[in-house]
Amino acid sequence: MTELRRATADQTAFRDELLARGLFLDSGVPGLYGRGATFEDIRLRFDALVTKAASADDPEAMRFPPLLPRRTLEASGYLHSFPHLAGSVFAFEGSEDDALLQEERADRHEDWSEFQRMTELALVPAACYPVYPAVAARGPLPPGGLVVDAGGAWVFRHEPSEDPARLQMFHQREIVRLGAPEEVLAWRDTWSQRGLSLLRSLGLAAERDRAADPFFGRGGRMLAANQRNQELKFELLVQIAGSEPTAVSSFNYHQEHFAAKYGLTLADGNTAHTACLGFGQERIVLALLHTHGLEPASWPAAVRDELWPG
Amino acid sequence: MTELRRATADQTAFRDELLARGLFLDSGVPGLYGRGATFEDIRLRFDALVTKAASADDPEAMRFPPLLPRRTLEASGYLHSFPHLAGSVFAFEGSEDDALLQEERADRHEDWSEFQRMTELALVPAACYPVYPAVAARGPLPPGGLVVDAGGAWVFRHEPSEDPARLQMFHQREIVRLGAPEEVLAWRDTWSQRGLSLLRSLGLAAERDRAADPFFGRGGRMLAANQRNQELKFELLVQIAGSEPTAVSSFNYHQEHFAAKYGLTLADGNTAHTACLGFGQERIVLALLHTHGLEPASWPAAVRDELWPG
Repeated sequence: MTELRRATADQTAFRDELLARGLFLDSGVPGLYGRGATFEDIRLRFDALVTKAASADDPEAMRFPPLLPRRTLEASGYLHSFPHLAGSVFAFEGSEDDALLQEERADRHEDWSEFQRMTELALVPAACYPVYPAVAARGPLPPGGLVVDAGGAWVFRHEPSEDPARLQMFHQREIVRLGAPEEVLAWRDTWSQRGLSLLRSLGLAAERDRAADPFFGRGGRMLAANQRNQELKFELLVQIAGSEPTAVSSFNYHQEHFAAKYGLTLADGNTAHTACLGFGQERIVLALLHTHGLEPASWPAAVRDELWPG
Repeated sequence: MTELRRATADQTAFRDELLARGLFLDSGVPGLYGRGATFEDIRLRFDALVTKAASADDPEAMRFPPLLPRRTLEASGYLHSFPHLAGSVFAFEGSEDDALLQEERADRHEDWSEFQRMTELALVPAACYPVYPAVAARGPLPPGGLVVDAGGAWVFRHEPSEDPARLQMFHQREIVRLGAPEEVLAWRDTWSQRGLSLLRSLGLAAERDRAADPFFGRGGRMLAANQRNQELKFELLVQIAGSEPTAVSSFNYHQEHFAAKYGLTLADGNTAHTACLGFGQERIVLALLHTHGLEPASWPAAVRDELWPG
């Protein structure tokens, strides 16, 4: 079984307060929570602020389910970089007698995995993954490229943790830029400033830093060092609970990575470049609750005016 | 492999039109689609109409992820009634060498299931399933019981189909009533009328009928007959494509089923009863597109005024 990540005392205390106030609803599985009305309202208000900030880009809206084709995951390179975080969907295959055996085992909370077979589906690991093949299927990008708003979508990370800011299933608000290298890079840098302003306007002491992904295994350290040296990833960090600030947003320049995998080309036939930005919506709600208190009615007026205008 | 359900010629023609206009975005897996901006706008407008209709009940909003604890699924009885529709989540467990082998297999689109182990998580089969244990955890219901609005949540059904109205992953807008038998039954019947009015106000020729769930196996026929005879399930049906009308909404009286599984009691200590209603949001959008045409700007003014007021 995958090991449970332990949390600091103030992280578990924060989680317990969230549960006691019904902001999170316990499921019994670490990192999987329901959301109460207040939590969800804050999340959607923040989502609306991102939509407003993104309107300058005139993005095309696309929405995707929390599952993607297994083939898309296989082609993406995710299983190379993050095999430990991926999730695959299995389903029943067998006779009526098998179904009966499966049910008997399940009733006793015993192992019923032998009756389950891998399906054509997997869990979406990042909200931008379904975007690339969907855009590639249309043929070359239009001149000037494209901005796609993938909305606030559910993504999965298999990392059970006691820290309420490390969820197995959460909303990532992702926007993707596809185009020529200089267009894509300029967009990524504009947005990391825009994101910083957005978080600071909500009273969060956000800081920007170079970052790297949690690549798997021995080879992962080199991948992470390369990513950091080439400044391919920036994160915005806010202090929630714990000893260090938590990343609540990231801005990633993929160069040709996804475009080459899925055959994304520019109008002139060259391979496109891509970048994406992601806001971890639950982490931002948690940062707001941790910074301003668990009762939004008592938050500073300037913050309330941003989130609940008019 | 689970067999692909074939569709009628007009169903596949409808699907092809949806894809050609970007209302659905193809993923390559039957029953799994992205949604274009127009499709999603209609869905959310319909969602807002349900919120308005539900305000009479003063519901408590709760939101849940598309995954639930495997234990909750095991305790629910779903694997008894619908083993063929359930999905479970698997994830990697193994050494760095195993990860390498898994990746090599995945790169070639070969079988990498041997490196995946069952996790503590499963896909939500109906949006009301996480509600019962969350409410039960609080202790007995308040006098008069409770109405919970679980929102428009993603649910999974493992039934790959060519019919665009039979999706593997879709939004179910669910509201749940928990209380004394007569309260619950009255609520269910009020809502089946309310739902009928709502759909008809959108120009849909909806009809109400007794119904039964697609129970698994030989014993399933008897379960379905009982359900129908006891009038435990009603559906609202609308003609989309195909030879018969499609269920777009259902109203289900569970009696003590869920309350007994999860220990839901009334204020007086007796076992509660529950009922739920679900709107299949994508099916309702498809019914609107099929009835009024693929261009919402040309829909009848009365329908537009309902969905896009003011």
